[in-house]
Amino acid sequence: MEKILRVNMTTKEVKVEPVPEKYAALGGRALTSRFVLDEVVPTCDPLGPFNKLIFAPGLLSGTSAPSSGRLSVGSKSPLTGTIKESNAGGISSQKIANLGYKAIIVEGQAPTGEFYVIKITPAGAELLPADNLKGKGGYDTVAMCRAKFGEKAGVMFIGPAGEMLMANAGVGTNDGEGNASRYAGRGGLGAVMGSKGLKAIVVDSPSTFDVPLKDAERFKAAAKKFSKILLDHPVCGSGLPSYGTNVLMNIINEAGTLPTRNFKFGRFDKASNVSGEKLAEIAVARGGKATHACHPGCVMRCSNVYPMPDGKVCAPIEYESAWAFGPNLEVGELDDVAMLNWLCNDIGLDTIETGATLGVLMEAGLIPFGDGKAAIKALEEVYTGSPLGRIIGSGATFAGKLYGVTRIPAVKGQAMPAYDPRSCRGNGVTYATTTMGADHTAGYAVTANILKVGGFVDPLKDEGQIELSRNLQIATAAVDSTGFCLFIAFAVLDNPEGLPTVVEMINAMYGTDLTIDNVIALGQSVLKTEREFNEKAGFTKADDRLPEFFYNEELPPHNTRFTLKDELDEVFNF
Amino acid sequence: MEKILRVNMTTKEVKVEPVPEKYAALGGRALTSRFVLDEVVPTCDPLGPFNKLIFAPGLLSGTSAPSSGRLSVGSKSPLTGTIKESNAGGISSQKIANLGYKAIIVEGQAPTGEFYVIKITPAGAELLPADNLKGKGGYDTVAMCRAKFGEKAGVMFIGPAGEMLMANAGVGTNDGEGNASRYAGRGGLGAVMGSKGLKAIVVDSPSTFDVPLKDAERFKAAAKKFSKILLDHPVCGSGLPSYGTNVLMNIINEAGTLPTRNFKFGRFDKASNVSGEKLAEIAVARGGKATHACHPGCVMRCSNVYPMPDGKVCAPIEYESAWAFGPNLEVGELDDVAMLNWLCNDIGLDTIETGATLGVLMEAGLIPFGDGKAAIKALEEVYTGSPLGRIIGSGATFAGKLYGVTRIPAVKGQAMPAYDPRSCRGNGVTYATTTMGADHTAGYAVTANILKVGGFVDPLKDEGQIELSRNLQIATAAVDSTGFCLFIAFAVLDNPEGLPTVVEMINAMYGTDLTIDNVIALGQSVLKTEREFNEKAGFTKADDRLPEFFYNEELPPHNTRFTLKDELDEVFNF
Repeated sequence: MEKILRVNMTTKEVKVEPVPEKYAALGGRALTSRFVLDEVVPTCDPLGPFNKLIFAPGLLSGTSAPSSGRLSVGSKSPLTGTIKESNAGGISSQKIANLGYKAIIVEGQAPTGEFYVIKITPAGAELLPADNLKGKGGYDTVAMCRAKFGEKAGVMFIGPAGEMLMANAGVGTNDGEGNASRYAGRGGLGAVMGSKGLKAIVVDSPSTFDVPLKDAERFKAAAKKFSKILLDHPVCGSGLPSYGTNVLMNIINEAGTLPTRNFKFGRFDKASNVSGEKLAEIAVARGGKATHACHPGCVMRCSNVYPMPDGKVCAPIEYESAWAFGPNLEVGELDDVAMLNWLCNDIGLDTIETGATLGVLMEAGLIPFGDGKAAIKALEEVYTGSPLGRIIGSGATFAGKLYGVTRIPAVKGQAMPAYDPRSCRGNGVTYATTTMGADHTAGYAVTANILKVGGFVDPLKDEGQIELSRNLQIATAAVDSTGFCLFIAFAVLDNPEGLPTVVEMINAMYGTDLTIDNVIALGQSVLKTEREFNEKAGFTKADDRLPEFFYNEELPPHNTRFTLKDELDEVFNF
Repeated sequence: MEKILRVNMTTKEVKVEPVPEKYAALGGRALTSRFVLDEVVPTCDPLGPFNKLIFAPGLLSGTSAPSSGRLSVGSKSPLTGTIKESNAGGISSQKIANLGYKAIIVEGQAPTGEFYVIKITPAGAELLPADNLKGKGGYDTVAMCRAKFGEKAGVMFIGPAGEMLMANAGVGTNDGEGNASRYAGRGGLGAVMGSKGLKAIVVDSPSTFDVPLKDAERFKAAAKKFSKILLDHPVCGSGLPSYGTNVLMNIINEAGTLPTRNFKFGRFDKASNVSGEKLAEIAVARGGKATHACHPGCVMRCSNVYPMPDGKVCAPIEYESAWAFGPNLEVGELDDVAMLNWLCNDIGLDTIETGATLGVLMEAGLIPFGDGKAAIKALEEVYTGSPLGRIIGSGATFAGKLYGVTRIPAVKGQAMPAYDPRSCRGNGVTYATTTMGADHTAGYAVTANILKVGGFVDPLKDEGQIELSRNLQIATAAVDSTGFCLFIAFAVLDNPEGLPTVVEMINAMYGTDLTIDNVIALGQSVLKTEREFNEKAGFTKADDRLPEFFYNEELPPHNTRFTLKDELDEVFNF
């Protein structure tokens, strides 16, 4: 990965640049965040000409390291105004890395209404008009790109929401079968892509696992060892490959921290109807799959393929999506959840934010709670760009403010995911303080709070949550830089061999001599880079708080409030 | 003014309190801003239970000081998230002062959907159900309140926009004839009032000019002298009483700083069609008035009464409103402008923000520029609370972000008024730095930039603008605390006797021994109070900037950009 691809949408210049020395040791999130800090004016308009959109495979993407095919997308977010890194699975990251690109930087803006495709192959990169793709949904976009550019192509795309510059538009990618349903969904990066006039990046490469390694034998041994570490762990090796991420539905419900009816209750009486177990049963009965890999070389295979009654296929339904359209809306019908999820994939919207938006609109009385069909009808409006469609496509905070709703479950403009912060307080600390706006992946304290992975910290008490979230945020920032799926964390937290083996793979690949301390320092450095950008963009500790109602409303069944305030400022004391 | 009225909308308690010593020397904006800093948590949700809404007459309101009947309304703004003081004319301020109230504090929240009226008379204050007023427009609300509580009553009210918690809802008041059309419009304080469940405050008092004075003779002499100072000044004594504020339309157009087509051009070829001169001609021909006082004792009488073809009356059409619906939308038909203005008064929306919102939606292509009838039709949707109505009622920033518009002429979420900052740079400095979000009244540099009042600072150059805006912001904060209309500033800036006479009136009324330095110190102290609140609410210097396009797009006819950036941080160096 010795070069950078820089595409200027104003001048249409496509340029290959060498990698500056200071970026050589960075990948994934570490690289996108560094580029954003170095090249984007923090106070710029996220949809204006001075923002940039950066794609970067992780440090180990394109190798045989198991589950290392995540792609980071970075920019200034139109949803939050903060720096943003959102990463996704799918097949593109490995292909980009195998073509030798460390990053793709998209800058400038095409004239409004013009859309283009960047085509990247071993022969080089070029910018092509995308006229026939304009207005197409995610499924058609991927199908048309594969038909035109090759069935094995990786496609990074936006749907109509991104073209219409909606603040909750995501950047989609496809899996190996062409399902258009992996999303770097959070933070509206699809709107940034739309504002550049970029409909898709199509990448094809003859190889998947063949990026150059300094010491191939050493690498192979470490990768093999790491596969075993993953497969030996009950979550990574059994739970995820059986029921996918939605195995969490019943667990989180049982724990009383499943946000229900827009974060009014912590349990949902129909949770089992939309659980991973139920999903697997229906999916298999209909000829779908209960387990599926989003990219080659993943051993956890937490995806699924869910056929719907009308013949459409939603692949996958993740836990957070099932939560967003299920318990959060009091919808207990899995086919409704699947349809809402399918629509998001096609329109090009983040599912978590969309579910939260519909929840807020239900809170406002616009749609009845529990009415999945009404929610589907409302979501379909986004295609049309109608006023209601715009509201839904712009996320929970905009929607809530437009309707005078004070119960908006969001931090820094981004909606909270599927764990109530009052009864999973470590996640609450992460939501409040992460550089990204409310985000579970940024410091997934569900591990120690609920799953008892990496120790146990009582989810209903404040003690230990700051430290837990801090350590997880640092570790996550490092993991997000490697290309590894975050789910390796379950094994890494429990198995003392985990982290050293990750470091061993990096050293074998790059000929470096890193230690675990270096990896922790990398994570810290990523967070500091992101905090610096946010501070320059105008964020302060006043933004590092949960919404008022989490401090004032008790959440059943544990009848607990969130109580951490000034302590939150200690998270970044490192 | 020896007491404070405190009304708790949660408990329905109506309480009269003595004035704490530390508030004794404060009035108007100085008092509302101090209360907000002291009693409102800066990070609270503006529409939640922890915000408060404060009404305060100025220090001299209720005396015979000419043009001193302004009422300050303060709170945390749902539009900007900053502290907010918005003041209005009308007859309520003098009545509140004559009943001895230094402030009315509204706190807590009635249950959603319940609305009340606070009735204040010499017999005391009480909270009454407002069921028959629910959903009523501004005109009906005032008419019904006067019918029920007395034809001379002052009514402070919200329209449907405030009831529906729209972020651009204003607080209205009436003039002596019952026209429901004076607005503390900026910053969404009507939504705060709606969130409390308060539809109106009705106040009646047998006296208007009779608040106690320490030295009545001395006061009378100073007031008489001040009247003469105002009447002798060409703007205060001739310009405003002839054509009202809209005398500015042709002047600002000629200066090339009349924002046209959503701040695309600095001149509008149909400006004269919507000018004060034209307005006066039509109004008088139709039996209306070219000049009119919004409260007893005003010598400038800058209001007007404009009958529309369908028999409705819009009173008044101010310059900034005529601009917002005229040049800003490329509408050159005064009856369309009047109808849009009338609708805002009835729905309960700020005209500047509404015009800017319609401009942004025209920029997005939703309504054609120049189509006044389409704008009227769109604005009428606000009554229904439809998605489009919500978008229009929520202001330019929300509307623009929903449609991916990058040319949003707003600072801190509040739209700019009728002077382009690129060719009236002193106003640009004020827009960027005032504690209120973009606001011309906060530091009206049009004086020295365009009107050559109080000296001349070249509007197209940066030199002197920081100092000009700083001094005007300090002076304005002081004036806004006295109850005086800001328009006294024209005379005060030009006549060395002006400010000493204001100080003389204050001293005669309160038995104090203040100097001009004390008044300047009061202004500085108000700004510091407001800045402290904003800093605690999370605002930084990153928020004290104009939108990107003012720095990057040249404005014809002078083809100039705004160029002040880091210098803006010097405004508050005092």
